Amino acid sequence: MTTMEKIFSAYQARVSTLTASRASNPFADGIAWVQGRVTPIHEAQIPMLDQGFLHSDLTYDVPSVWDGRFFRLDDHLERLERSCAKMRLRCPLPRAQVRHTLCAMLARSGIRDAFVELIVTRGLRGVRGLSAAEVDALPNSLYMWIVPYVWVMEPAVQLAGSGSAIVARTVHRTPPVCMDPTVKNLQWGDLTRGMFEANDRGAGYPFLTDRSISEETADANITEGSGFNIVVVKDGTLHTPKRGVLEGVTRESVFECCRRLGVPYALDTVPVRLALEADEIFMCTTAGGIMPITTLDGKPVGDGAVGPITRQIWDVYWRLHYEDGFSFAVDYEDETGLEGVANGNANGTVSVNGKAH
Amino acid sequence: MTTMEKIFSAYQARVSTLTASRASNPFADGIAWVQGRVTPIHEAQIPMLDQGFLHSDLTYDVPSVWDGRFFRLDDHLERLERSCAKMRLRCPLPRAQVRHTLCAMLARSGIRDAFVELIVTRGLRGVRGLSAAEVDALPNSLYMWIVPYVWVMEPAVQLAGSGSAIVARTVHRTPPVCMDPTVKNLQWGDLTRGMFEANDRGAGYPFLTDRSISEETADANITEGSGFNIVVVKDGTLHTPKRGVLEGVTRESVFECCRRLGVPYALDTVPVRLALEADEIFMCTTAGGIMPITTLDGKPVGDGAVGPITRQIWDVYWRLHYEDGFSFAVDYEDETGLEGVANGNANGTVSVNGKAH
Repeated sequence: MTTMEKIFSAYQARVSTLTASRASNPFADGIAWVQGRVTPIHEAQIPMLDQGFLHSDLTYDVPSVWDGRFFRLDDHLERLERSCAKMRLRCPLPRAQVRHTLCAMLARSGIRDAFVELIVTRGLRGVRGLSAAEVDALPNSLYMWIVPYVWVMEPAVQLAGSGSAIVARTVHRTPPVCMDPTVKNLQWGDLTRGMFEANDRGAGYPFLTDRSISEETADANITEGSGFNIVVVKDGTLHTPKRGVLEGVTRESVFECCRRLGVPYALDTVPVRLALEADEIFMCTTAGGIMPITTLDGKPVGDGAVGPITRQIWDVYWRLHYEDGFSFAVDYEDETGLEGVANGNANGTVSVNGKAH
Repeated sequence: MTTMEKIFSAYQARVSTLTASRASNPFADGIAWVQGRVTPIHEAQIPMLDQGFLHSDLTYDVPSVWDGRFFRLDDHLERLERSCAKMRLRCPLPRAQVRHTLCAMLARSGIRDAFVELIVTRGLRGVRGLSAAEVDALPNSLYMWIVPYVWVMEPAVQLAGSGSAIVARTVHRTPPVCMDPTVKNLQWGDLTRGMFEANDRGAGYPFLTDRSISEETADANITEGSGFNIVVVKDGTLHTPKRGVLEGVTRESVFECCRRLGVPYALDTVPVRLALEADEIFMCTTAGGIMPITTLDGKPVGDGAVGPITRQIWDVYWRLHYEDGFSFAVDYEDETGLEGVANGNANGTVSVNGKAH
């Protein structure tokens, strides 16, 4: 078995165990924490008047759990805090309490491979006419939810090496001067249009370009896709866009893989031409990891198979999930982070015990 | 009294009546219809997993009611249908039933001057990986809510003629190639940044520019602001941007006013320079009507008072609200549009009676 086959096979066994628990576990499909109230995922509701809904006035982040271990949680929480600061938002709970609550939610649900989403919204009051001090004083809202691990590219497609993408022609990525893409946001209008175009053209994923021109090639530039960074391999070097994209935590993990493998990488402008002439291409995101693209705009990438560098990075990436420097084991016996909820105390004053995560 | 004073004075009297009803009327602050369930506005909730929240995958519209008369309702519903088509969405209820339900909600609430919002979202399932046919088959969701009339510019500011705006320097309006602004959408990241900048610079409203250059003047162009179109008056002619903006229903009403007043208007590129050298400026939107701007970037517009053309358009605009060609009287005795709800039948099969609106 290849490493990929081993990883997916062990994962499928864990999924089977979780699925078998559904009859007795109301949280097997997911668990939500809505301003302190814990519910099964499909019962979770938010106020209709939340500005996160009414003006997409929010930021969010998505850490993951793999085989019972939280992966790079603090990197995600740090980015969430940076995004909040740029949006004049504050996460209503201190970071230690967020961590503790998420771990308790995992324990309650028994989900060992998880997609974890945290959304900080403006809350019930809009910002029109408010001074900066008044905006800072608004009570923001926090929603957290956990579902079984989400695959932006299904394991079967990764195993088959059949991932396909297009360079979108009908839509461009929203430029940073309009919406800062380093603030992880849910304004997916351009990405949704891109997904429609990809599907209409018989491909799986859209790569969106920016509207500026590369100085080197007089070519448009690659940015990112519908929830993932894009990495192009050419002559043994990785290239990924420096600007106009989310500063992905998975992208950081890819750089870590490169350093370990001795593969050079460049964070720079990526002209479309470079993608069209690439030896290998992969997408990367927390919800799916390293996702090989072997067909671009209907033509094979390189020789049309998953490339050797992509495969090496894939293997190291998943190995990182078991290293203490990048992950920690969740205590699935400890639900104390939900104590405040059980006591009806959901206003953020729950004391956090000293347990180290 | 000026017409403006008369209009606001009668409005305030109606507001007082509504406010006095609060003790006995749970809907005086607003009423919501969430997929068939009617609640007081502050109790309305939506599923957390709605893609309208999770990816701002939605479109919406905002008609209004003035002095018990629905204003240009069909124009708003037609635009909503056009927006839905562009987004591959469908409003779950037929138009006649939407109309009937909204009127019944007004009757139930007793709100005679109303801000009415309809939001059509993708529903609970995202579009990733779906074919066009599968996207078309998704059950979309509809949320409708009504609150007392909202003023993007408060009557006191309109009366005082103290509206101020800035041309945003730190943020541009998202270009149509990223998100089509004729699809009314809630991706307000750029507009929110603009509002922050306006407040930071001591002004009330942001005017956002596009990123292209006017061919005539080598100048950037005005687009729109945080929920309003922008109209510039120069040498007796109105100028408002043709492209990169919402095709406002209130903007249409402004053109109607112009035709009645014999004032010429141009739907064209509006360079920033034209705004900076304007004789008069006003903003327009359903939630506030004709809103005069007398200070732009800290300098008086024209002589710094509300201009004569703005004032004439203001008067005709509010007169239109009483004309049968543009509005109809809501029957505040008829709550039958909520019957399906009372019977627990909220799946859209409620029969609509033949009552003409």
